[in-house]
Amino acid sequence: MKKKDTNTDLRNIQDDERRNIIAGRNPVIEALRNKREMERIIIADGSEGSISKIAAMAKEQGIQLQYREKSVLDRISGVSSHQGVVAVASAYEYSELSDIFDLASERGEPPFVMILDDIEDPHNLGAIMRTCECAGAHGVIIPKRRAAGLTETVVKASAGAVEYVPCVRVSNIAQTIDRLKDMGLWIAACDMGGEMYYRQDLTGALGIVIGSEGKGISRLVKQKCDFTVSMPVQGKINSLNASNAAAVIMYEVRKQRDAQQI
Amino acid sequence: MKKKDTNTDLRNIQDDERRNIIAGRNPVIEALRNKREMERIIIADGSEGSISKIAAMAKEQGIQLQYREKSVLDRISGVSSHQGVVAVASAYEYSELSDIFDLASERGEPPFVMILDDIEDPHNLGAIMRTCECAGAHGVIIPKRRAAGLTETVVKASAGAVEYVPCVRVSNIAQTIDRLKDMGLWIAACDMGGEMYYRQDLTGALGIVIGSEGKGISRLVKQKCDFTVSMPVQGKINSLNASNAAAVIMYEVRKQRDAQQI
Repeated sequence: MKKKDTNTDLRNIQDDERRNIIAGRNPVIEALRNKREMERIIIADGSEGSISKIAAMAKEQGIQLQYREKSVLDRISGVSSHQGVVAVASAYEYSELSDIFDLASERGEPPFVMILDDIEDPHNLGAIMRTCECAGAHGVIIPKRRAAGLTETVVKASAGAVEYVPCVRVSNIAQTIDRLKDMGLWIAACDMGGEMYYRQDLTGALGIVIGSEGKGISRLVKQKCDFTVSMPVQGKINSLNASNAAAVIMYEVRKQRDAQQI
Repeated sequence: MKKKDTNTDLRNIQDDERRNIIAGRNPVIEALRNKREMERIIIADGSEGSISKIAAMAKEQGIQLQYREKSVLDRISGVSSHQGVVAVASAYEYSELSDIFDLASERGEPPFVMILDDIEDPHNLGAIMRTCECAGAHGVIIPKRRAAGLTETVVKASAGAVEYVPCVRVSNIAQTIDRLKDMGLWIAACDMGGEMYYRQDLTGALGIVIGSEGKGISRLVKQKCDFTVSMPVQGKINSLNASNAAAVIMYEVRKQRDAQQI
């Protein structure tokens, strides 16, 4: 239910991510040339000149662009010499889909993947990655745009799980689901209106989709799912915090898988 | 694992809680006289005069005192006329233990209470209260000191659950556990080294203790517990985020209780 607060977001950058901030036109162009992984590039309103080149390179690499007042860039970078551009580099390296499958086969288990459809709160992404490591999920898949990426806040909230849990960033979640289905995974949407999660067989090769805090799972992604796993919800609030819902489902998978081995 | 960052904490006050900020000596004394519920009182280093009266009243009412530089109080209150004292009032009213028992009996269920031993992260407290409402727990118990209280951040993170889930603040968790045991509850510690949570009968009158993010459950509180519920933890990180652990256990209780009614 929690909506993203842009101010919070920028405030967090200031405190946690300054060491991943690249300020100034040439440094940002250099980082783009070196294909350094980035969460976004922030451009000061009204900037001209080589900014258009930066914007074009960012677009080509699928990096999110944000336009803000100059004072916001001053605050984020901690300097005024940013020349109208600041890049937020990723605090951690992303993995490839194959890393998830490699980890599953290394452990001799059917793949078990969490697919996060636009989780925006970095605390939620971090907590989900931490629970992935504890419950034995083989990786998370997140979208390139809009969602929280591997920032310092996420690294901290994950309690170090980013070290062990592959996080794959994809351009299109729906297309990735098609690919996972081709590779033999069943895809479950964690949403209302399905069979109770504990009455379903979750022991096979499985991807579970968790929706965003505000909007749940997008229509297109939902259509791609093979089935829905639901949780009983009492009372007057109709959904859990995204990381809490993910934890309950992941631990049901763990339990069913452990029971099989006995 | 997440340690409380005082700066984050104070920053949060600035953005979310200013409407619950009481600045100035007379306003704070007035609020104390009216027994307005407070999270803490912050006093500027080196303050003198009627501050000692405020400190004494706060102590008598069991309200936490913090000493900070004057500039911190300027920032929190948004004014410089705070005269060296700022009170953070609670954003929401606390309940009594009897409210939890009333809610359980209203629903015709054995009491089911979450006991939070020093949860410091307001996002965790909010998420736990939200999951309480969804899983049908009848209330949470938190300690008066050190832990996160009902601040604006918690209210938001709870997605409104503070409206429905009684939150009781107590001076001493260990003594409260004794009282709950006298009232017929079994008290479970959520910790390592016990039987798996899903192999235990959690259908009776029950209190579950969740430890703090950094230190887990304190020794004295642990000794008071009747038994330990454990979760399987794989990989290289040995515990879940506190709200995620709470969610998994609460949903196991829900499931066992639902199964009984079929």
